Amino acid sequence: MKRAATRSGEFDRIARYFAPLAESHPGAFGLRDDAAVIAPQTGHEFVVTTDTIVAGVHYIGDEPPALVASKLLRVNLSDLAAMGAEPHAYTLNIALSSDTDDRWVEGFASGLAEDQAHFGIVLIGGDSVGTPGPNVFTLTAFGEVPVGGALRRVGACVGDTVYVSGTIGDGALGLRALRNRLGGLSAKEHETLAGRYRRPEPRLALGRRLSGIVHAAADISDGLVADLTHIADASGVAAIIDAALVPLSSAAHRAITADGSLLKIILSGGDDYELVFCAPTENDSALQVLAAEIGLPLTAVGSIHQGAGVRVFDVDGAEIELDRLGFAHG
Amino acid sequence: MKRAATRSGEFDRIARYFAPLAESHPGAFGLRDDAAVIAPQTGHEFVVTTDTIVAGVHYIGDEPPALVASKLLRVNLSDLAAMGAEPHAYTLNIALSSDTDDRWVEGFASGLAEDQAHFGIVLIGGDSVGTPGPNVFTLTAFGEVPVGGALRRVGACVGDTVYVSGTIGDGALGLRALRNRLGGLSAKEHETLAGRYRRPEPRLALGRRLSGIVHAAADISDGLVADLTHIADASGVAAIIDAALVPLSSAAHRAITADGSLLKIILSGGDDYELVFCAPTENDSALQVLAAEIGLPLTAVGSIHQGAGVRVFDVDGAEIELDRLGFAHG
Repeated sequence: MKRAATRSGEFDRIARYFAPLAESHPGAFGLRDDAAVIAPQTGHEFVVTTDTIVAGVHYIGDEPPALVASKLLRVNLSDLAAMGAEPHAYTLNIALSSDTDDRWVEGFASGLAEDQAHFGIVLIGGDSVGTPGPNVFTLTAFGEVPVGGALRRVGACVGDTVYVSGTIGDGALGLRALRNRLGGLSAKEHETLAGRYRRPEPRLALGRRLSGIVHAAADISDGLVADLTHIADASGVAAIIDAALVPLSSAAHRAITADGSLLKIILSGGDDYELVFCAPTENDSALQVLAAEIGLPLTAVGSIHQGAGVRVFDVDGAEIELDRLGFAHG
Repeated sequence: MKRAATRSGEFDRIARYFAPLAESHPGAFGLRDDAAVIAPQTGHEFVVTTDTIVAGVHYIGDEPPALVASKLLRVNLSDLAAMGAEPHAYTLNIALSSDTDDRWVEGFASGLAEDQAHFGIVLIGGDSVGTPGPNVFTLTAFGEVPVGGALRRVGACVGDTVYVSGTIGDGALGLRALRNRLGGLSAKEHETLAGRYRRPEPRLALGRRLSGIVHAAADISDGLVADLTHIADASGVAAIIDAALVPLSSAAHRAITADGSLLKIILSGGDDYELVFCAPTENDSALQVLAAEIGLPLTAVGSIHQGAGVRVFDVDGAEIELDRLGFAHG
């Protein structure tokens, strides 16, 4: 990382809080050189993904800093999962407002440290500057796939089944819960949904097992319908979702029972970070074996057809009109 | 790149201005997938460097947007040059204020397009979001070096000669010229210095030829003394600079003749983006041959000794005290 002369103490801050996160990668040179050196294993290539978040836009601002860091890292890891990649390393760029104190930065770094250990990823470089505006963070993650093995959004075929991992809608309901706009839940259900929004679980074990089984995949960051639309558009096909098949957590089920209008939130809300993917019907049994092996439900929710766009039908066969195809950040 | 739902038109903006910059790299997938795929050539590894700039902090804000983009790219390429790497690809993250219009973004992208062609580098991904604060840009560049061939700051040895490329101080004087704080120059000299500040020339051809000839290298972004201090600190040695040997452009020479106090600005000012490196004396003739081949002067300005820190002596042998070891952004 480079020192920003416009902020005193930046150099010490990097040495104290961020250099320890780079210790296990020799090519990071302790964050003290002009750049870092990385290489994929023989027969592999890098998958590169990057996200920027702004205080007050992409997170509320009063979250514990460890959670802000953890979500930023996990959102990038979810993109690696969607490409079938194994996490390898990341860079971090921070633009800090003058009212961001060392304790906040320490908390932020501690969130990264915990997740680095959990996901086997290491900091290799970055930059630290001051800004008169809100805090802005950019994280760029590097994963590895066997050469040519990356999962893509393009490739869905007419006749494919559409699957999702885990449960859908918890992220969007979690954001509503955090904003006290979701009633009728127990404290535990409230906490479960909020946790799904604040600290998503990237589906890495699933992603790296899908190569060769599926035709196309994406992670659900913008919402099930929006992300499936990305696949349909890239692949030049249409998709149909049967809303009754969409898997719900018990908390989401309880919420929707109390307020049926939440179905649209579940279908179009973002921040689930599950995977949505399209596979030929003959691979269904292989996918069910995989689901059992990794302990994560994989549920068929629809199918791929000729045409364009994504349509959703309810249990009575009536089409559900979604005015917002996907939203992020509530 | 991902669409930020908080800004309308972001998706179109990426498709219109940035996707064309990614056309020549198949693994960028037209900026429409979850991530990009890149791999170094056989026998090579990646060098990764990244910089963040904030409007009003790292640039004044009224520059032509093409120049802002060009400098951001070139500053990163200078880090690649300092590591001896060949440019390969880059990612770009933009956080835009609401008063940044499409014309500004178009100009920014045009600056990237021109430099991509010049330096043989291609956009492979990024992110685009809105911010209530000033514009913030992060660029992450990927270069290639033969495995183990990266130049480092560590490795300078007692007895080494310290060299610099090109001329020193033009960047800092250029910033002063732009702020109308530099008198006695012709319009052409003014323009020359300002151009060196606004559009530095990364010394890529030099960097990739230095492997095996030099012990340590860095680019001069923080200032000659500060960046040589980085080398000295990393290598556990001291350095002495003979100020009379430091090569000056004719414009810088004219400025210092009019105002001798500018010497300290020349020694400690940033933004030159020349290379400073340490080589054993027996490689001097090889370096002079190299200088002739690439058409860039390489000048011995000092030497490496036991101890710590960097000291500068004037033509009379008196030590020059520098109260600021290096500054950036004026």
